[in-house]
Amino acid sequence: MLVLITYDVNTETPAGKTRLRKVAKQCVNYGQGVQNSVFECFLDAGQSKMLLHKLEKIIDKETDSLRFYYLGNNYKSKVEHIGIKPSHDVNEPLIF
Amino acid sequence: MLVLITYDVNTETPAGKTRLRKVAKQCVNYGQGVQNSVFECFLDAGQSKMLLHKLEKIIDKETDSLRFYYLGNNYKSKVEHIGIKPSHDVNEPLIF
Repeated sequence: MLVLITYDVNTETPAGKTRLRKVAKQCVNYGQGVQNSVFECFLDAGQSKMLLHKLEKIIDKETDSLRFYYLGNNYKSKVEHIGIKPSHDVNEPLIF
Repeated sequence: MLVLITYDVNTETPAGKTRLRKVAKQCVNYGQGVQNSVFECFLDAGQSKMLLHKLEKIIDKETDSLRFYYLGNNYKSKVEHIGIKPSHDVNEPLIF
């Protein structure tokens, strides 16, 4: 199924920047970054749980926000895009 | 139905910052900003088309990206959140 993952990581501190890099690194294993901090991942239920659990351990729940949207298998009619498409993975981990 | 709107507006120029503000201003009329550049809006099919059309006219398709995800009416089981929740609307138009 398609799982849309969006996150807001507070990058005011070096530790925040590290968290952001780690979150992106996990997501990139399972899907494509379609916008900054927005990933579309193809996961089964087990993978989805596992990824959620991994990301939960990375983020700081006091300052960061993580959302999973489950779009199911018939997702093609559920997504509309306008404008540029990423020519590269926009969430490719940055080097800090 | 719940429509998730995500956008990436290139804010390298003053014109880009204006576009970002305008996009947020439109979205805030229909829903809640849940993360930076991520809105959850409750729209019927007509409103959704109208908003898409409005945003399409605001963004620069050469540099910006806009995505609509249609989550339907039974959306509660399709969304999972971890971490902080916005105490205010995180996409409240900023003053530049």
